[in-house]
Amino acid sequence: MAGRDSNGAGPPAVVLVGPQLGENIGAVARAMGNFALADLRLVSPRDPWPNPKAWHTAAAAGSVLDAARLYDDSEAAIADLGFVLAATARRRDMVKPALTPREAAAALHAARMRGAGTGILFGCERTGLDNADAVRADALVMVPTDAACSSLNLAQAVLVIAYEWFQAGPEADKATVSRKGSKPAEKAEIAAFFAHLEAELDACGFLHPPEKRPAMVRSIRNIFSRTGLTDQEVRTLRGIVAGLAAGRPD
Amino acid sequence: MAGRDSNGAGPPAVVLVGPQLGENIGAVARAMGNFALADLRLVSPRDPWPNPKAWHTAAAAGSVLDAARLYDDSEAAIADLGFVLAATARRRDMVKPALTPREAAAALHAARMRGAGTGILFGCERTGLDNADAVRADALVMVPTDAACSSLNLAQAVLVIAYEWFQAGPEADKATVSRKGSKPAEKAEIAAFFAHLEAELDACGFLHPPEKRPAMVRSIRNIFSRTGLTDQEVRTLRGIVAGLAAGRPD
Repeated sequence: MAGRDSNGAGPPAVVLVGPQLGENIGAVARAMGNFALADLRLVSPRDPWPNPKAWHTAAAAGSVLDAARLYDDSEAAIADLGFVLAATARRRDMVKPALTPREAAAALHAARMRGAGTGILFGCERTGLDNADAVRADALVMVPTDAACSSLNLAQAVLVIAYEWFQAGPEADKATVSRKGSKPAEKAEIAAFFAHLEAELDACGFLHPPEKRPAMVRSIRNIFSRTGLTDQEVRTLRGIVAGLAAGRPD
Repeated sequence: MAGRDSNGAGPPAVVLVGPQLGENIGAVARAMGNFALADLRLVSPRDPWPNPKAWHTAAAAGSVLDAARLYDDSEAAIADLGFVLAATARRRDMVKPALTPREAAAALHAARMRGAGTGILFGCERTGLDNADAVRADALVMVPTDAACSSLNLAQAVLVIAYEWFQAGPEADKATVSRKGSKPAEKAEIAAFFAHLEAELDACGFLHPPEKRPAMVRSIRNIFSRTGLTDQEVRTLRGIVAGLAAGRPD
């Protein structure tokens, strides 16, 4: 998954620099798995690796952890990559473009299509990336958040950026929410339903007086025209009208 | 924060139906705080509420938990809202539009600008929303994910949807399509219409046999939940039901 394919280089690597808790590494793996990222790189995790707590929170994304690679420093972790972003919660005192996640997704796809290996650096849970790591990146990526509550946890920062990457790419098409097959009612079926309903409403006196009838009919048709009824639903509605009009069975 | 302001109704409510773990409720609050959502509603949480574990994971978003409201069922929790989405991980056997988070964000902003209170229903961690809850919503929202690892945890589903809502910002308001001169029906008005309709359908025998009643009720509610009914339209529908049930005047 992380290798080159016919559409350019593989999906971006997620590089965690100095992550502290195994649970968080697992949650990052899960977020990656949700959005078809597979290349996890760990730079000097605080606790010994492999860490069983990570597999627990990774849920179905254990394979991302199985394939994770360990590095001593961030320089080594990104040595094979051609385009790298640094995720950061704050503006840095450095002259680098700061991208939104959506802009970052576009930039990552563009780099990938040029054949560049890509990656995103994330700092440790408590302090984020230090400047020495951020400066290695081609650009920063910042998730815009509400100023009153701006801190995203590590897995959530990964999630938002991975989400945008996935939405921007061809993978999203495959997963695209499909609209399930149920046949839309034909106009003739809907017209027959209206005729049936209006005949019953005439019979029970609901559409009186005659001068108001056209406007009332229009409002009623409007309610049902807006709904995109299926053929089954039209049959249900006709059953309701017939049932109500026939009155109580006793 | 949840009330109407000069730009229409407040930001969407997040409605958790049957959440299990306090930690997850806290993580949801944090995700809400990150993206300026403040109206958290809890429907029958499994563990006693308030739950100290929630405040621990909420980090800086404790105020979201302080203001959270408790409800016995989802119907009560959304009674004052005019436009409700149901977050779901899978296609349902019901004919409702399924929106991506980006489409959902635009729809929520548009509803808000019409003056409708809005909300998003999320099911419990293990099983998601059941159909009886999902059917109350105007549309579904599904996060497209990789098929091999499609399960998002609760807070992450909230995060992605809240993120898109926040990104859509005030620009999405321009897309508003208003229906002049009438306001969206509140869920309580629609619930009263359903109660009225179903009572009449019980009386005339339409909902027999009893074992088929739940599925029939679901299909019927679904027809009307999809339409974005105005308060005037709900009055018209109630008039139709009363008129048909009263039978021919002669």
